[in-house]
Amino acid sequence: MPLRSPDRRPSPAPLADVSIDDGFWNDRLETNRETSLEHQYDQLGERCLPNFRRARDGKEGGFQGMCFEDSDAYKWLEAASYVLATREDPDLKERVDEVIELVAAAQEENGYLNTYLQLEFDDELRWTNLRNLHELYCAGHLIEAAVAHHRATGEDSLLEVAMAFADHIDDVFGPDDLHGAPGHEEIELALVKLYRVTDERRYLDLAEYFVEARGTTERFDWETDHPDELAGGEWWHTGDDYDATYGQSHAPIREQETVDGHSVRAMYLYCGAADVVAETGDESLLDALETLWTNMTEKRMYVTGGIGSTSDGERFTRDYDLPNRSAYAETCAAVGSVFWNRRMFELTGEGRFYDTLERALYNGVLAGVSLDGTEFFYENPLESLGDHHRKGWFACACCPPNLARLLASLGEYVYATADGEAYVNLYLGSEASLTVDGQEMTLSQRTDYPWGESVELDVGVEDELDAALHLRVPEWCEDPELSVNGEPVEGKREDGYLTVERVWEDGDTVKLAFDLPVKRMAAHPDAPDDAGQLAFQRGPLVYCVEETDLGEAPSRLRVDPEGAVETRAADDLLDGVLALDAEAELLSAEDWDGELYREWKETREETTVTAVPYYAWDNREEGRMQVWLPTD
Amino acid sequence: MPLRSPDRRPSPAPLADVSIDDGFWNDRLETNRETSLEHQYDQLGERCLPNFRRARDGKEGGFQGMCFEDSDAYKWLEAASYVLATREDPDLKERVDEVIELVAAAQEENGYLNTYLQLEFDDELRWTNLRNLHELYCAGHLIEAAVAHHRATGEDSLLEVAMAFADHIDDVFGPDDLHGAPGHEEIELALVKLYRVTDERRYLDLAEYFVEARGTTERFDWETDHPDELAGGEWWHTGDDYDATYGQSHAPIREQETVDGHSVRAMYLYCGAADVVAETGDESLLDALETLWTNMTEKRMYVTGGIGSTSDGERFTRDYDLPNRSAYAETCAAVGSVFWNRRMFELTGEGRFYDTLERALYNGVLAGVSLDGTEFFYENPLESLGDHHRKGWFACACCPPNLARLLASLGEYVYATADGEAYVNLYLGSEASLTVDGQEMTLSQRTDYPWGESVELDVGVEDELDAALHLRVPEWCEDPELSVNGEPVEGKREDGYLTVERVWEDGDTVKLAFDLPVKRMAAHPDAPDDAGQLAFQRGPLVYCVEETDLGEAPSRLRVDPEGAVETRAADDLLDGVLALDAEAELLSAEDWDGELYREWKETREETTVTAVPYYAWDNREEGRMQVWLPTD
Repeated sequence: MPLRSPDRRPSPAPLADVSIDDGFWNDRLETNRETSLEHQYDQLGERCLPNFRRARDGKEGGFQGMCFEDSDAYKWLEAASYVLATREDPDLKERVDEVIELVAAAQEENGYLNTYLQLEFDDELRWTNLRNLHELYCAGHLIEAAVAHHRATGEDSLLEVAMAFADHIDDVFGPDDLHGAPGHEEIELALVKLYRVTDERRYLDLAEYFVEARGTTERFDWETDHPDELAGGEWWHTGDDYDATYGQSHAPIREQETVDGHSVRAMYLYCGAADVVAETGDESLLDALETLWTNMTEKRMYVTGGIGSTSDGERFTRDYDLPNRSAYAETCAAVGSVFWNRRMFELTGEGRFYDTLERALYNGVLAGVSLDGTEFFYENPLESLGDHHRKGWFACACCPPNLARLLASLGEYVYATADGEAYVNLYLGSEASLTVDGQEMTLSQRTDYPWGESVELDVGVEDELDAALHLRVPEWCEDPELSVNGEPVEGKREDGYLTVERVWEDGDTVKLAFDLPVKRMAAHPDAPDDAGQLAFQRGPLVYCVEETDLGEAPSRLRVDPEGAVETRAADDLLDGVLALDAEAELLSAEDWDGELYREWKETREETTVTAVPYYAWDNREEGRMQVWLPTD
Repeated sequence: MPLRSPDRRPSPAPLADVSIDDGFWNDRLETNRETSLEHQYDQLGERCLPNFRRARDGKEGGFQGMCFEDSDAYKWLEAASYVLATREDPDLKERVDEVIELVAAAQEENGYLNTYLQLEFDDELRWTNLRNLHELYCAGHLIEAAVAHHRATGEDSLLEVAMAFADHIDDVFGPDDLHGAPGHEEIELALVKLYRVTDERRYLDLAEYFVEARGTTERFDWETDHPDELAGGEWWHTGDDYDATYGQSHAPIREQETVDGHSVRAMYLYCGAADVVAETGDESLLDALETLWTNMTEKRMYVTGGIGSTSDGERFTRDYDLPNRSAYAETCAAVGSVFWNRRMFELTGEGRFYDTLERALYNGVLAGVSLDGTEFFYENPLESLGDHHRKGWFACACCPPNLARLLASLGEYVYATADGEAYVNLYLGSEASLTVDGQEMTLSQRTDYPWGESVELDVGVEDELDAALHLRVPEWCEDPELSVNGEPVEGKREDGYLTVERVWEDGDTVKLAFDLPVKRMAAHPDAPDDAGQLAFQRGPLVYCVEETDLGEAPSRLRVDPEGAVETRAADDLLDGVLALDAEAELLSAEDWDGELYREWKETREETTVTAVPYYAWDNREEGRMQVWLPTD
């Protein structure tokens, strides 16, 4: 896979330069800002911030929560910083400053900062339990928050904390010092971010060290053999049964050919590796990532973009093992897939990565939060017997703030630029101020995507600008029609984009129109849980059937793959969706006489089945739900 | 449901009076005697018998194994006693005597006997942890073994041990003493057995007490509230989260309407309750059992007769919740269903109970042991991705000896008698010497059931005997043809039997012929995992498709419910089976180009699918397996 030369690599339009005003997203983003972030801040007050206070106040009292509880504060700070990048919000700013002040106060002289270790163990037990204790993971989230905060505000208050900790980590780790990699990846990608805002090469070197050290050191074996010398010896997945695959340390990353182990860990590792490629230009590492990406998207990913087939280790399992009811498909993993796919696009300029990103974003990610922004899914199964529901919070609360930081930074995913090139990657109403070849180019996008079938862009330039405008052609889109200033334009179709290269003048308008037919998706015959069944998809949205609409268990359905399907604008349904009404049949129970089994006889009734977008399920009465529907 | 009057209640022909010589069963029973029992005896030597030795030798050294490890010895003794009931085997007899001597030597003066408690806890901690510690459960298995041994040999060596322990238990428990019931039922049915051989009413009263105390005392709540006063406080399902339903103590048995909780526990409770009904004639208790039976067979039982839908608590779940891949369907639970159904038949004379018994026996039970008798299934799923295999032994080794004792006592399940009535319940080659109205009536049965389509019985009587001969008409059998001495006879069809009432003369012959077509079974539309799929069944045998025959994952199959199916005698296959060859189609992967999902297009290839009896699966190469097959 060709790594683009640095000048041709798309880089995202900064968050501050993109403002979103979109029919589909406005409510979600507002809910995220006003409700979810608020709700999460309140949750921080329960356990997370008190830990920092106790660490600040001389370590009196123990630690509460999971060993990675600190990261909740960092992810909240990161999300809040993204909000501050795009709008004035003095109250939020004040809260952010207070939390930063508290975090800074809990940091030790030498830069170390992890309230779990500080409150629960002697100093010499730091960095002893790399497999399980998430010190580097939390450090990574601190750094990400600091970079976001610095970018949003220009301030250094949190950046200084992060740099001090990163420098401390740099002192501790290395081939000749503590030679090992984290049990949960995250620090790698964070260190590259830190390098990018500080230009301090040592952070990049340390990121590269961690990526390459993975699967090459015997550190985890040493920990297995010395349980008494570790902090939190009994913490989680310790002991002799530690499976190196769980944290992708079973082999050097360049030798890994299948996505394995804990799916969030995997995504973060691949992100870090992609970031290293971006800075070092290492094409062989990119090739390794492409192999992994192909395995994931062709063998181990749900149609919703969800990943991780089992709750046992929250992990990938085997090729084509994609059970629906017991799917794990952790919200965080779908978020991680979004992160990774954006990076793969930025290295290659290929739209296929955005196809996967969009599939995850509109389905596996967005289902993770209730329409009102107060309840969250950790697991995102594709079938429910009616007993799976969002919750207000989790003991292991990684998903809600992960979702929040992604949604708060959505603006960064819409546009990208390279030398003489501008990309439109997501279709949503927005205004962007891009810099192309040193000139300002504004793009004003209007669309009612994903419901509607067209996108209009107004181009603004001060002077004439010779540039290529790349419009992403989603994978489901067969015959996009392009026009500029009302005149049909052929465009060039390449790498998943339709490209118009011209000298742009102020006031030019571009229109992209695409059919949005309802697609009936089929799964590969080797996937035992889906093969022979169909899933409705329209545009990027995967649909599901809920018992509350059907009045029966969806498992009774038999859908004709050739049957008629109507779309229906349902403004009052689920905050407004386009529902699908499909001809189908229902297995009838009327001529059953109490028996559980009988000789084959099947009676069916005709019915119309309503399908709703998967992201919106479980926002009404409890009931069964299915994405994949048996065919007749 | 009418409880038959005592004189009309069928009682089984004693084991010693039935000898089996049958093409289907000979190998299984010989393997059970020669291999499984031997293998299990060897296993007893690992942990179980050493516990008894240490208890005997003054409690030096700790206990090894599960808290109910003692029961393995008892179940082995019971199975071995059944063998001794039907054949001379001096070596086995010597072994039995040695084990009995060891068991007796471990018993304490006051009758108490439980090596886990004896070796691990102070005396005052006995009977403190009724919920979890299986003292009464082990006592029940001791009693069952003692009764079996006494009946087989006429000896009292183990019976005396059992009576001493039962008397001790009788001293300890009662409304005015320790008022509670066991966490794992078993003692109830055992005490009724003990009553029947000793005629000591106190054992029946104690059995009735335990059955009725269930769900009516606050003992388990007290244990929850006093963890520090219990033996083995941390043992298994202890603590605040104890779910009373798990052990059927959520309500008095008469108020229970659905089969709930741990499925083996449930079966043993219902057995004990049925035994109490048999002795007390309590029809209201029988009504409660029928309600439970109807719920189980109409809502919560696999087509294989397996029960218990989830490994989480090894338990029943909800109506129609019968997942195939994650089915628990513990071998012990199917064995327990056999026990219970025989008792229900003996109370009512109704053949439907034997239908359920036969379904469990030929499928859910028999699959529990490999053809060579050395490996066992604990769980019996109806679908496998190729990763479920029998094992030589288990840490929790309840299933192998449970299977062994059932197979060793199979002769007791074939015939039954009441006043002026004889029943043939299972079709297998055998000779029985029955006592009908005080006269001897021999029945000599020849059949190649379940493969063949007829049964011949030679009747032997000394004098003419006026008696009703009831031949069971299995549920799958539509038009049985009956003849006596070569002349067609209509017979009377009632309660699941075809009955010939006549004056029997020596040398009379009876022939029962039935069609054995391959049935395509359907499941109720409310069962989401099976509805709309079909399972092949022929006679009592449920069939499955194994990847080793198909060459592909069975999930790729699409079977036409109207398609042709041929039977094929495959003498070399799986120790000789009748295989099925059915027309079907396979989803083709040929026109897939690497993608995991695509717009609906389905290509199929015609194929012939071979199905083999479920009991014989996983005796060849590893591979996927499915009972329920998608239809087209």
